[in-house]
Amino acid sequence: MAEFGSDAARLAQGVWQDLVAELKVNCPNSELVVGAEIPSAFLTDFIGSDVGAADVYVKASSTQEVSLALRAAYKRKMPVTVRGAGTNLVGSTIPRGGMVLDVSGMKRVLELDEDNRTILVEPGLKLCDLQALVESKGLFYPPDPAEKQATIGGNIATNAGGMRAVKYGVTRDFVLALEVVLPDGTILELGSPCLKDATGLNLKHLFIGSEGSLGVITKCLLRLIAKPEATAHALIGFKSLAEGISAVNTIYAANLAPTAIEFVEKKVIAFGEAFVKADFPLPEYQAYLVVTFDGKAESLAEQLSACRAAIAAKYQIGFLPLTDPEVAHNVWTIRAALAKAVQASGVWEPVDTVVPLKDIATLIDDIAALSAQEGVRILAFGHAGDGNVHLCILKDDLPLEKWPDKLERVLSQLYARVYELHGKVAAEHGVGRHKRQYFLERVNPDELKLMRLIKHSIDPYDLFNRGCGYDD
Amino acid sequence: MAEFGSDAARLAQGVWQDLVAELKVNCPNSELVVGAEIPSAFLTDFIGSDVGAADVYVKASSTQEVSLALRAAYKRKMPVTVRGAGTNLVGSTIPRGGMVLDVSGMKRVLELDEDNRTILVEPGLKLCDLQALVESKGLFYPPDPAEKQATIGGNIATNAGGMRAVKYGVTRDFVLALEVVLPDGTILELGSPCLKDATGLNLKHLFIGSEGSLGVITKCLLRLIAKPEATAHALIGFKSLAEGISAVNTIYAANLAPTAIEFVEKKVIAFGEAFVKADFPLPEYQAYLVVTFDGKAESLAEQLSACRAAIAAKYQIGFLPLTDPEVAHNVWTIRAALAKAVQASGVWEPVDTVVPLKDIATLIDDIAALSAQEGVRILAFGHAGDGNVHLCILKDDLPLEKWPDKLERVLSQLYARVYELHGKVAAEHGVGRHKRQYFLERVNPDELKLMRLIKHSIDPYDLFNRGCGYDD
Repeated sequence: MAEFGSDAARLAQGVWQDLVAELKVNCPNSELVVGAEIPSAFLTDFIGSDVGAADVYVKASSTQEVSLALRAAYKRKMPVTVRGAGTNLVGSTIPRGGMVLDVSGMKRVLELDEDNRTILVEPGLKLCDLQALVESKGLFYPPDPAEKQATIGGNIATNAGGMRAVKYGVTRDFVLALEVVLPDGTILELGSPCLKDATGLNLKHLFIGSEGSLGVITKCLLRLIAKPEATAHALIGFKSLAEGISAVNTIYAANLAPTAIEFVEKKVIAFGEAFVKADFPLPEYQAYLVVTFDGKAESLAEQLSACRAAIAAKYQIGFLPLTDPEVAHNVWTIRAALAKAVQASGVWEPVDTVVPLKDIATLIDDIAALSAQEGVRILAFGHAGDGNVHLCILKDDLPLEKWPDKLERVLSQLYARVYELHGKVAAEHGVGRHKRQYFLERVNPDELKLMRLIKHSIDPYDLFNRGCGYDD
Repeated sequence: MAEFGSDAARLAQGVWQDLVAELKVNCPNSELVVGAEIPSAFLTDFIGSDVGAADVYVKASSTQEVSLALRAAYKRKMPVTVRGAGTNLVGSTIPRGGMVLDVSGMKRVLELDEDNRTILVEPGLKLCDLQALVESKGLFYPPDPAEKQATIGGNIATNAGGMRAVKYGVTRDFVLALEVVLPDGTILELGSPCLKDATGLNLKHLFIGSEGSLGVITKCLLRLIAKPEATAHALIGFKSLAEGISAVNTIYAANLAPTAIEFVEKKVIAFGEAFVKADFPLPEYQAYLVVTFDGKAESLAEQLSACRAAIAAKYQIGFLPLTDPEVAHNVWTIRAALAKAVQASGVWEPVDTVVPLKDIATLIDDIAALSAQEGVRILAFGHAGDGNVHLCILKDDLPLEKWPDKLERVLSQLYARVYELHGKVAAEHGVGRHKRQYFLERVNPDELKLMRLIKHSIDPYDLFNRGCGYDD
């Protein structure tokens, strides 16, 4: 049997005919595409600049067919790359040969249990569709990553976070149980519909955030809560980002429970303003927090006013509840425009670091210095309430051939600083193919060894997510 | 080198002299006791009915000495049993030979970071001491297992829950990072001070709740929140437990966020009343919820009244805010007396099952039938807000020699029912030695196999927690 992993083997025509024949028999309801016929859209991630190659593409239709497809790959030691909606930002869905297993077609809602406040779904269900469904029933799925087109399976595989993590936690906190298929095709249920569980090793938590390295998620039992009655936002202007970041602690110390606290600097706002030709309010300030509260409608004004009072007691601020529709519209439009302006600028690299709360301002200052030193634009914004800083590093006019080296110089220095601050490479996007180098440079070798020991105990031929994350 | 695990080897005098000599050199600040000199208090758990045996007892003083002690055990393939305060209820701290490693002396608070709202502590710190310290600073550690004398390390090893899990989550949700020592003596830091992390396999979550089967926790970085301003409780009487349990969903559906919801039946209350000779209020009802709210002082009356209104709209209830000191005193005294009454009754077995929320009442009914059928008293009370049902199975007058068989009959039937309801053996106490049989009967063999594969990748000689939980 030919080995995978080499281009020569991968490109040898006809070698995988027996695999394809087996899949056609065993997975009659799955879609199969072979070799060069596989559309490039299924060989890349959201960034799209790196397009991989695969021998066979399987769009799976059921747990049973996932299991049989994996069994077919396992006995041939064929690498497997799992994908959902392909919104991944770190290259985890870019194959280098082998099988692409697409679960985006498995998107049924299997059971919405309003009494227990749980929902059982297939992994290909999109976040936006899940949110719309449960909210129509007066229920609420709190995790809220920015990319609403992502699948729930992908959210679980990266332990996606989002803005509302400040109040509610991340995806991990709402996953009650998973059905997974191991590399050898074994189907397992991990977790339970119960809210507490101290029964044996918690394998569910090992799979959450494992970026497709241990198997395929085929069912997801999620915990829901009652939908908050109402939501209110305020824009708070500060003289400096450092003051804005310090104010986060002031909010918590005042015993307020914001849903989200986002930060953005004026110079980043200017980028969005220019793009959409609109004016951001409170222009006399240098940095902003956008604070969100949810809960009983009648309590929101009180929460906003307590928030204002607590911060104004320590800092000179501008405080603007986003109740005026026109002002609110401008704020959200400019904020949304940031992402579009970044895309429109051409080639760019997304960064998803996280540092302890109190070190956000230090990191942002260091990034400004790095940006000046290296002559590249770096836009920083993110989740002030949980330390998750998103950067957009822009190529702008730099010649494309100089970009990889420049990016590596910038990222190496950036992550060195992040780790000095006890931060991490990935908060909610994962490590994948693109952050792997920086992760490997910084991870404790003993911790890496343990990750690999565990991986090999589950995936002895190292078939899943090869060349990504902690893979060796 | 002699093998451990057989009584003959264990009892052979002098065989471990070289180990003791090595420990004396390498662990000069740790306390050592050898063989028959080891006090029986260190060879048992809180129940105390099963006393094990060990070759050497090490009361560790530092991470470094833990590492050296484990290395000494590892090279001799000596089993290791880790213990803290010994409040374990499932026999996890009962050794069958080998080393007892006691971390209860490692109880320093290493850093309280008020800006980041984190605290770094050694594993032997008691929960009560942690709670008192952080609350004196206006901070709050939400997990609140009933046993306040337990250590934080033990709480993490069992993923302890407690009453406040309803609002705040369990121990897992407040562990940011751990320092652990692996069976071979390797010292590792898992996790980070960051609130989000999607960087490689999450080994921290694998260690949480692993009951000492993978290594020793030597440092714990915990997340804190601001201390709630005030707390209020109400006693709610129902015509039946089924109505009380249904009302839990009514509370959540009304968008209320109780801190805790406990349930107890009148017939169980009667047991406590008789013991302390006091009267429980609302005697005309058959079952009770005790609901707790915390938050801003001025919001509590409103929350209690919203809770009352939501439930009273559906059920005929008695609603008694526990504001009258005498009434409140009686309620808490009788509730606390339940545990004392159980202890005073003689031999008993604690049970820590969990089922989905909506199935609590069904389980309680089935337990009543089982109790009648087998002629044993079974007291049920627990956490209605999260499905965690605690049972006390009382031996009462049954002759001691008949107790093990009777208990096994009762437990086998009980867990069969729990698993039919998609519940679990252990919610927050762990599996340990005493629940192992019932866990092994019910766990999916493929899941068990995977637990063991992972265990063996970390503990290849199967030294830790031998004969407990998922161990093979």
